Amino acid sequence: MTENTGPHTAGSEYAEPFLLAVLASGGLDAEYVRGERNTLYRRGENGEEVPVTDFVGGYGSLMLGHNHPEINAYAKELLDGGTPVHAQFSRHPYANDVAAALNRIVQRERGDDESYYAIFANSGAEANEAAMKHAELDRGLRLAALAEEIDGHITEVTVRVADGTAVLPAGSADSVEELAAEVRRRNEAQFARPPLFLVPEGGFHGKLAGSVQLTHNEGYRLPFRALAAQARFVPRDQPGALRKIVEEERAKVLDLTVEGGEVQLVERDFPLFTAFVLEPVLGEGGIHELTPAFAQEVQQVCAETGIPLVIDEIQTGMGRTGTFLAATRLGLKGDYYTLAKSLGGGIAKAAVMLVRRPLYRGQFELAHSSTFAKDSFSCLVALKVLELLEAGDGAVYRTAAERGERMLAMLRAVRDEFPEVVKDVRGRGLMVGLEFHDQSEAAAEPLRQVARSGFFGYFVAGHMLRAHRIRVFPTSSAVNTLRFEPSVYLTDEEIGRLETSLRDVCAIIRDTDGGSLAPVA
Amino acid sequence: MTENTGPHTAGSEYAEPFLLAVLASGGLDAEYVRGERNTLYRRGENGEEVPVTDFVGGYGSLMLGHNHPEINAYAKELLDGGTPVHAQFSRHPYANDVAAALNRIVQRERGDDESYYAIFANSGAEANEAAMKHAELDRGLRLAALAEEIDGHITEVTVRVADGTAVLPAGSADSVEELAAEVRRRNEAQFARPPLFLVPEGGFHGKLAGSVQLTHNEGYRLPFRALAAQARFVPRDQPGALRKIVEEERAKVLDLTVEGGEVQLVERDFPLFTAFVLEPVLGEGGIHELTPAFAQEVQQVCAETGIPLVIDEIQTGMGRTGTFLAATRLGLKGDYYTLAKSLGGGIAKAAVMLVRRPLYRGQFELAHSSTFAKDSFSCLVALKVLELLEAGDGAVYRTAAERGERMLAMLRAVRDEFPEVVKDVRGRGLMVGLEFHDQSEAAAEPLRQVARSGFFGYFVAGHMLRAHRIRVFPTSSAVNTLRFEPSVYLTDEEIGRLETSLRDVCAIIRDTDGGSLAPVA
Repeated sequence: MTENTGPHTAGSEYAEPFLLAVLASGGLDAEYVRGERNTLYRRGENGEEVPVTDFVGGYGSLMLGHNHPEINAYAKELLDGGTPVHAQFSRHPYANDVAAALNRIVQRERGDDESYYAIFANSGAEANEAAMKHAELDRGLRLAALAEEIDGHITEVTVRVADGTAVLPAGSADSVEELAAEVRRRNEAQFARPPLFLVPEGGFHGKLAGSVQLTHNEGYRLPFRALAAQARFVPRDQPGALRKIVEEERAKVLDLTVEGGEVQLVERDFPLFTAFVLEPVLGEGGIHELTPAFAQEVQQVCAETGIPLVIDEIQTGMGRTGTFLAATRLGLKGDYYTLAKSLGGGIAKAAVMLVRRPLYRGQFELAHSSTFAKDSFSCLVALKVLELLEAGDGAVYRTAAERGERMLAMLRAVRDEFPEVVKDVRGRGLMVGLEFHDQSEAAAEPLRQVARSGFFGYFVAGHMLRAHRIRVFPTSSAVNTLRFEPSVYLTDEEIGRLETSLRDVCAIIRDTDGGSLAPVA
Repeated sequence: MTENTGPHTAGSEYAEPFLLAVLASGGLDAEYVRGERNTLYRRGENGEEVPVTDFVGGYGSLMLGHNHPEINAYAKELLDGGTPVHAQFSRHPYANDVAAALNRIVQRERGDDESYYAIFANSGAEANEAAMKHAELDRGLRLAALAEEIDGHITEVTVRVADGTAVLPAGSADSVEELAAEVRRRNEAQFARPPLFLVPEGGFHGKLAGSVQLTHNEGYRLPFRALAAQARFVPRDQPGALRKIVEEERAKVLDLTVEGGEVQLVERDFPLFTAFVLEPVLGEGGIHELTPAFAQEVQQVCAETGIPLVIDEIQTGMGRTGTFLAATRLGLKGDYYTLAKSLGGGIAKAAVMLVRRPLYRGQFELAHSSTFAKDSFSCLVALKVLELLEAGDGAVYRTAAERGERMLAMLRAVRDEFPEVVKDVRGRGLMVGLEFHDQSEAAAEPLRQVARSGFFGYFVAGHMLRAHRIRVFPTSSAVNTLRFEPSVYLTDEEIGRLETSLRDVCAIIRDTDGGSLAPVA
């Protein structure tokens, strides 16, 4: 069963063969057999383990490293104890414990006592879709309440005109019925408008049918645009751009009221936007922390217009940037938070969506569920992860900040030595990026070709893996930016090995024709 | 950390408190501490383990029972060996092994040599969304090719009219430019039409933003309808209904051609439907196997119109109905298959989507991915599950069929004894349902109230749990139908205990006022 035999299958690749060919062309098709802390092992020619230092870190999923011994030991205990993984529709105290722990942590970081209800999921994208769905359920209920209120006003005004306690204004409709019909006709068109989301340019929120429309990268999003509601993407560096977009899309419905005995046609705001969804530090968009000015504008506009704010902490959260939530440092407060990746401790598929209590709609629980979510295994592993993160009065968060600073200092030194190669170095804590200058106009033909392939960072990564046993990848929507998201156990020696490999890459780009970055033969 | 302490959290429920209250009102808020084969254990008053026989089976996820010893032992081995769970963008031989094994099994059951590429996911809903996305990518590429072809024809015809080798028909447009503009204008409107899916009435395909629109139940679907593309739901018992719907929605675009020197305006079919998605046996819709006639009509219409057929085997597959795929017995052949639930062996979150090779679009692999999917842990567990299912020349499938028949025979006997209580008994293999007659017009007030609550099956389930330590649930979209989906290790004794509990329930409904089914105090 575990061999690839049989007439139709021998030697064939059935699981994403095209991706494998792309990886192979960059020398990235390594097979890993074991993981530990920041190291992945592949087999050498004589069957020996060859260590590779992993700065990808499961795209941010390994805050505590590969196969953390306490987490794995605990997982084995759960399996030994016959944990009731599949017990949907029963009492899940472990899920409640995770939610309660998150409430304590989030309250501490926000510095307030807002509490949050939790909905569990199996991946970050699923958690984001749960937030999208909850926010849309909420919007729908607000729409229904608005429609009912307007209907009530129309009835009231109709009665008052009939009994003579109100009159139509001069020059308006011939009758109150005509006016009511006009209000209803115009409102119907507004109510039928498809909802919109707001997302910063460069945002990445997953690749499921709904969530991928909140992902800015056109290659991921456009082929599927007919499947789901759309987002307006907001420039992050133009003060006022958000207000302008909200103004452009502002929807109004008509209502009737009586003032001084005269019927008045008034405009009411219509909630067209389901939610504003953002990452405090863009991950796949190239490791860009939101500016305090942008964060403040988002917070203000959301507060003024009643647009709920969903903070996607899937990659940034769990202490990666030096606080449990990356939003904390920005002073950003969300109506929703989503967490996944490191929440699963490197082995479980754990994800959660939090909704601020005043916005919560209890009926969501009867409309939304998942067979695999809220299970004892992933919840208990998540609880163990939170315990490890919170131990020693937040030692992990402090270490993440300190290790990140050390890594960043090294990257800055490389940038200073190779200013013509390295464009920028940035990030926070253990979420750090190095952006190369664009080489698509480079003098040397091989380097130009690599740059123009659209896979620049992947070729650099291939070289670092082959020549230095360093595993890195570019961010998926900004291929000139390498990302570094190691675990909190990052050593000085590992930082040193990364430094050596980066200096080599920079020297190749500066001093050679770049041929050694090109595909292996 | 694992305690519910702290000023804002003491004693509070943060994880779906409303659902818990609903469950509590039916006496269903049991806390399970351990699972084994078909048994979940809760704690008794003195801390002892109290066994509950579980006929829910993780909603079809436990073909091999809770905590199968070989699967758990293997999972522990993986953890001990430091399996490289997070190694995205590398070679994943384990994923390929799962895909190759599925190819061999599917080819055997189909009796042909069609091969399938595999895309991995973290839940059944995610696998369905991957299928939706792939089918939409494919449709988009077909649309683009069609548009390009028509553009080419327009150019060609324009040239021929200009050089006099073709003329416009009498009474048509004044000029070829005018005709071309008219064709373009009308086609643009067609191309802008939102795509549609086709799904049998009663279908259930998940609850993510996109997939929930393929789920017929309005309570799950309608609050979120503005978020994603829509489905037309097809009656399963009206021959010709599918053809009628396809005809109603048939979209045509215009094309130009030259025949006998004269420009002709011709109609071309436009692929409006992204896919037909179905379960061979409706699960949440009430355990209804598709009729051979309906299955045949679907297969024919899809073949004639080029609509890809997605067979959702998430609940029905993995041998549950006596063959690996439930579609096999119906002779239904899919362009896509989705699998999840039992694929994870009761502990892992494994899901996969298969695409028939001629329809496969390699670029999908660069557009779609997931941090948690295609990981070594869930793939290797899935491979172990497939090994156990296939062992002994398919002994598990034969046992599932035999055990299912035994259970069904018992249910038929209960129905025959209580014809005024039991409306129907149906299913295949270990996917079986018992439908109660509607009691909402019952003479006895308490029984009528239970029936009118909308939670009839849940109250019955509460009684069976309290009085008989039997765990059952209704199907989520047909609450008068109890579902039974135990593992293949179902014993005669367990069937006997289910029989006793059902006879008790039937006697209560027939002979009492039903008060004992009502909420516990």
